[in-house]
Amino acid sequence: MTQPLRVAIAGLGTVGAGVIRLIDANGELIARRAGRPIEVVAVSARDRAKDRGVDISRFAWVDDPVGLGRHEGADVVVELIGGSDGPALALARTSVAAGKSFVTANKAMIAHHGLELARAAEDADVALKFEAAVAGGVPVIKGLREGAAANEIARVYGILNGTCNFILSRMEAEGRDFADVLAEAQAKGFAEADPSFDIDGVDAAHKLSILASLAFGTSPAFGDVAVTGIRNLIAADIAEAGALGYRVRLLGLAEANAGGLFQRVHPHLVPVDHPLAHVTGATNAVVAEGNFVGRLLFQGAGAGDGPTASAVVADLIDIARGEFGPAYAMPSASLTAQPPADPGERRGRAFLRFAVVDKVGVLAEIAAAMRDAGVSIESLIQRGATAGGGVIVTIVTHEGPERCVAQALDKLAGSQSLAGKPMWMHILG
Amino acid sequence: MTQPLRVAIAGLGTVGAGVIRLIDANGELIARRAGRPIEVVAVSARDRAKDRGVDISRFAWVDDPVGLGRHEGADVVVELIGGSDGPALALARTSVAAGKSFVTANKAMIAHHGLELARAAEDADVALKFEAAVAGGVPVIKGLREGAAANEIARVYGILNGTCNFILSRMEAEGRDFADVLAEAQAKGFAEADPSFDIDGVDAAHKLSILASLAFGTSPAFGDVAVTGIRNLIAADIAEAGALGYRVRLLGLAEANAGGLFQRVHPHLVPVDHPLAHVTGATNAVVAEGNFVGRLLFQGAGAGDGPTASAVVADLIDIARGEFGPAYAMPSASLTAQPPADPGERRGRAFLRFAVVDKVGVLAEIAAAMRDAGVSIESLIQRGATAGGGVIVTIVTHEGPERCVAQALDKLAGSQSLAGKPMWMHILG
Repeated sequence: MTQPLRVAIAGLGTVGAGVIRLIDANGELIARRAGRPIEVVAVSARDRAKDRGVDISRFAWVDDPVGLGRHEGADVVVELIGGSDGPALALARTSVAAGKSFVTANKAMIAHHGLELARAAEDADVALKFEAAVAGGVPVIKGLREGAAANEIARVYGILNGTCNFILSRMEAEGRDFADVLAEAQAKGFAEADPSFDIDGVDAAHKLSILASLAFGTSPAFGDVAVTGIRNLIAADIAEAGALGYRVRLLGLAEANAGGLFQRVHPHLVPVDHPLAHVTGATNAVVAEGNFVGRLLFQGAGAGDGPTASAVVADLIDIARGEFGPAYAMPSASLTAQPPADPGERRGRAFLRFAVVDKVGVLAEIAAAMRDAGVSIESLIQRGATAGGGVIVTIVTHEGPERCVAQALDKLAGSQSLAGKPMWMHILG
Repeated sequence: MTQPLRVAIAGLGTVGAGVIRLIDANGELIARRAGRPIEVVAVSARDRAKDRGVDISRFAWVDDPVGLGRHEGADVVVELIGGSDGPALALARTSVAAGKSFVTANKAMIAHHGLELARAAEDADVALKFEAAVAGGVPVIKGLREGAAANEIARVYGILNGTCNFILSRMEAEGRDFADVLAEAQAKGFAEADPSFDIDGVDAAHKLSILASLAFGTSPAFGDVAVTGIRNLIAADIAEAGALGYRVRLLGLAEANAGGLFQRVHPHLVPVDHPLAHVTGATNAVVAEGNFVGRLLFQGAGAGDGPTASAVVADLIDIARGEFGPAYAMPSASLTAQPPADPGERRGRAFLRFAVVDKVGVLAEIAAAMRDAGVSIESLIQRGATAGGGVIVTIVTHEGPERCVAQALDKLAGSQSLAGKPMWMHILG
């Protein structure tokens, strides 16, 4: 076990350079912990000459990233190219077929092709690891796969996208609207020029589908995640939620029950005494509720080169130690395919916000729609004249089936009383 | 790998019975995850006939708990007897010597004898695991040993004793004094009849010394932990801290630097925007700060039969999977012995509370002692007439060496102006 673990890295963006920097900085400590050194031996990236702040002349250079998967001198390939298909996927297949362990931070690829890759890795008797794909540096894959492994998990949920949480925190702290904060975040580099992957919840959905599979022993089913982002949130949503004792968080939430697998990314109201209510900024946090352990929380930096590199190298240390097994905690053949659960069957409390026209009869129309659909109202607040001149009505319902709320909103669809599409958020119970 | 992992359990209190109940309830799921069944084959306890709510007639009964370590049919021995020495330690030695892996929830034994047992386990090529010894069901041993393994850890700290945190939460919520809340906690069974192990910080110190060894690669050094409990806290401490934007928490905190290993259990002021400020009740939470990952937080139930059983069985699953290595993350021969660091060298901000006699010159005396010791005062508040009739002076210092604060308090020792020993808390920076 004193032979070094030889690593090839494809993709030298901030995370790839971070992995090299980490191994340079902590290499001696890592060798003590892993029982042998971890050495980068080869790299591949688009531009060999680019200054990345780390010296890559020490490593073999391979022009074709996919060819890195067959690099003779490497035991493990680390993929940091990104993208669900294309060269990243080709590299994954090539590496595993060549009998090399494979480590990736690529949530999109794992969400779409994780099961195929897990099968291939099992057949080849190599490791497939992707700790960095969910919640950055937070060891939540390990937490579910190993730490909580003795438990039947009732549900797993969390704050899975740092950009969204950063935006929500700013909206909360400063009372500003979404578009305004997004523009600032983009200007400061905290949000991408095309932010839709983050703010429309797709990135969180990738991560959620990975967590769900680990938590429930179900086949990954990214396509079944119901996704709503934070684009339609306004300052009043957060203010009204705050007045009621809640914070607004974009949560990914998965449950497994007799009706199937439920997976949803959606803005939620989180009670202020719940730990997720105090997670601000770009931090990620994941909660798993087990039948013996109760509520476990894992929290930390969800992105960035340092945290992501930390998770990548943690995977490498597991491989160097020989402490790894099936990627999804059990052999892929043991994973069960579950149909998506009908959200209409779920019971919960809802927060509904309507931007309404200021005229006689609007409240009666909304109240009638709720009554006709069997929705029981816990509280209703109408406030006049927001900054935009509109009138806002917010409703909190008693616990009931989501189907009834959906029916009430269907009844109101297209109503002349509404100035826009209502906002429906779920209250975390 | 389809042979069951055969387990012998010594000690059938609430946790031992919990482990059996867990394996009964989740056995099928555990077999899927572990790749093979985990089966209890033998047990030992003081009273064979006692009703524990689980049927133990299925298992071989061994009268002598130490003899269980040689039980032919067992691959692993789980020790849930408790106590740092005595039968627990004898069983540990016997089990490992007999070539069996050993799992324990016994923080006292690991704090005192962990290194000896780790060496023996390495020599015998068996697992020594103790996830349940720190923070109950929270996988923080795994989090440090594996999840954060790529990082140099700057410090590790947390809320390590649920009884203390429960008491502090009640004092905070209800403005009551320590003794009053302790009596209630004892009446309700949340605190032991002899609570000193918990409230004087010894239990937290056991756990801290285990975390420090894992975090820093240092030999376990329980004897070097400086320990202060919560016995001397009064309601006014918590109220004044609250007014300044802090919550009071009993923290175990360890740092490693050039000066040696610093380990302390002490009441701290935690800023209200720090996640530990929101950890209430019997919950445990551990923070590790890594040089790449940043701040990681692990939180959950720190005690109780379910959470503790969850951690014990997580260890068994690792063993069933063959995914284990040296107990302290690296071979015990690689652990370095570090001298205890001089706390006087540490820089920080202090919260000082004086119960004073209501007479002329008291404030001047305190202020002079601070000045003479070189302590810079950030704020000073004197409030008259507490419920007990005393006068309370609280001081928050600017950042400075702890030595200076200690000197100031030395100067004031025995002063006729003080109605009792001052309370010194550290402010978490």
